[in-house]
Amino acid sequence: MLKPLGDRVIVEVVEQEEKTSSGIVLPDSAKEKPQEGKVIAVGSGRVTENGDKVALEVSEGDTVVYSKFAGTEVEKDGKEYLVLRENDILAVVQ
Amino acid sequence: MLKPLGDRVIVEVVEQEEKTSSGIVLPDSAKEKPQEGKVIAVGSGRVTENGDKVALEVSEGDTVVYSKFAGTEVEKDGKEYLVLRENDILAVVQ
Amino acid sequence: MLKPLGDRVIVEVVEQEEKTSSGIVLPDSAKEKPQEGKVIAVGSGRVTENGDKVALEVSEGDTVVYSKFAGTEVEKDGKEYLVLRENDILAVVQ
Amino acid sequence: MLKPLGDRVIVEVVEQEEKTSSGIVLPDSAKEKPQEGKVIAVGSGRVTENGDKVALEVSEGDTVVYSKFAGTEVEKDGKEYLVLRENDILAVVQ
Amino acid sequence: MLKPLGDRVIVEVVEQEEKTSSGIVLPDSAKEKPQEGKVIAVGSGRVTENGDKVALEVSEGDTVVYSKFAGTEVEKDGKEYLVLRENDILAVVQ
Amino acid sequence: MLKPLGDRVIVEVVEQEEKTSSGIVLPDSAKEKPQEGKVIAVGSGRVTENGDKVALEVSEGDTVVYSKFAGTEVEKDGKEYLVLRENDILAVVQ
Amino acid sequence: MLKPLGDRVIVEVVEQEEKTSSGIVLPDSAKEKPQEGKVIAVGSGRVTENGDKVALEVSEGDTVVYSKFAGTEVEKDGKEYLVLRENDILAVVQ
Repeated sequence: MLKPLGDRVIVEVVEQEEKTSSGIVLPDSAKEKPQEGKVIAVGSGRVTENGDKVALEVSEGDTVVYSKFAGTEVEKDGKEYLVLRENDILAVVQ
Repeated sequence: MLKPLGDRVIVEVVEQEEKTSSGIVLPDSAKEKPQEGKVIAVGSGRVTENGDKVALEVSEGDTVVYSKFAGTEVEKDGKEYLVLRENDILAVVQ
Repeated sequence: MLKPLGDRVIVEVVEQEEKTSSGIVLPDSAKEKPQEGKVIAVGSGRVTENGDKVALEVSEGDTVVYSKFAGTEVEKDGKEYLVLRENDILAVVQ
Repeated sequence: MLKPLGDRVIVEVVEQEEKTSSGIVLPDSAKEKPQEGKVIAVGSGRVTENGDKVALEVSEGDTVVYSKFAGTEVEKDGKEYLVLRENDILAVVQ
Repeated sequence: MLKPLGDRVIVEVVEQEEKTSSGIVLPDSAKEKPQEGKVIAVGSGRVTENGDKVALEVSEGDTVVYSKFAGTEVEKDGKEYLVLRENDILAVVQ
Repeated sequence: MLKPLGDRVIVEVVEQEEKTSSGIVLPDSAKEKPQEGKVIAVGSGRVTENGDKVALEVSEGDTVVYSKFAGTEVEKDGKEYLVLRENDILAVVQ
Repeated sequence: MLKPLGDRVIVEVVEQEEKTSSGIVLPDSAKEKPQEGKVIAVGSGRVTENGDKVALEVSEGDTVVYSKFAGTEVEKDGKEYLVLRENDILAVVQ
């Protein structure tokens, strides 16, 4: 398992097949919308200049929407994850 | 439903048909004015370096004017929304 | 009506006809001096990293001088306004 | 009269005729040294992230030396002034 | 031994032989994924603007994943190490 | 006399004739080392975001070493001075 | 002697002859690894936005490893030193 540091979050990408209105499946590079992912692990939060630790808003298990080009890909035990800063997460799906 | 994070706001764009004085309808790329939108959901606020959480000024249901090029488009349940930072919102329509 | 957010101010531009010394009226693009405007509405102020809200120095009704290229044009009820950050306002005319 | 905002200062430029050692008067664009000016009005000070207002060090009537390319020219009642941030003022002439 | 300063960490790189699916071993420049390393020594932490010292989240002995292009190579007693800022560490392997 | 503002210092440059090992005097543009100067006047200090004023470390009369390309030249009463921010001063000669 | 200001440190460079595996001595420009130096003098520390002074972690006499391209060369009494910010020091050799 990976435990992210600070205000980071580890996300399992939810692949979305995407078709144009005429039914053509778009290759990966043609998709530009934000992506969905499932939160696998969260960091312990960022430390402000005041010395306080601010806990993350998202929790393990949340489905989140994040900017497509954010984060760093990480591979662990043959699976691909994305390490994001919480600031790159736009919203939680409820 | 989408719950935005931090100082973010989810807005439903209010499309404005726009004509020149001679009555010609302008295509989308010719409009450069700020746009109006309706606030659908607001984040819980940003955390200052002091550790305080600052609530947003805008509320669900507000009609807001925002910079045309701000924000990230998000699609949920077939509808398009815009995720904005509160800082990209210029004013509330009263 | 528009209510600006944070440290923003809504200003009605005061158009100044400008002539060269030989009496020629300059077209808009040739004017580079700061402009005058009348404050129509003010935001509730910016929030410092300390969590304090700092009220604006300018008030509704003030005539202000601002950097010519600052701000964003907004149209409401057929009239044009300018949304400025207080920081773009150079001085108040007394 | 103009009342500058924040940490701004309004200065009346002190024009200095400048000659080369051979007596030739230099046109304006050839001068690169800092300039002198007389402080006409001062703002109420900047607000720190702590919420404190810090009064300016310069006062009305001071003669100051400032970076030549700093500030914004303002015209009021037919006279030219310069609006500077206090930070652009190098020193007070005593 | 090397004792890193501030929020820095010294890491011993864990080399990962990498093959493509067809079994070809990739040369070093073709690998772009984050890398794993073992923490050899940690600094005493960063000092916030508040004057507090914030201890590091990682400890000696931790296996960490870090951005491939982060850090500075250091050689000591014939061995190569990497000096990283804690902020360049993405996650701890547990 | 000139009284510098904030964290500024006024320095009288100490010209150093410089020769190459073969005895050739280098013209000014060929020197790239930091320069020495004598502190003529010091500002009252910078104000932190906390509202505190931090006094300068250097005092009138100190000989200081500063980055060659730092500061702004000022002329007063026919003499040339340099206005430096304290941050551009590397060390005090003791 | 030179007394560095703020968070600066004066270092005497420890020259390391460097050979390639075939025994060829590399000229200076071909070395890219961090360098070692001995701390000759330390500043009194940086002042945070809180007004606190933070003492340096390194002390006179320490051998330190620093980024090769950091710092400013200073010559005093015919010897060459390097003035570094503490932040450019990677680690202390113990």
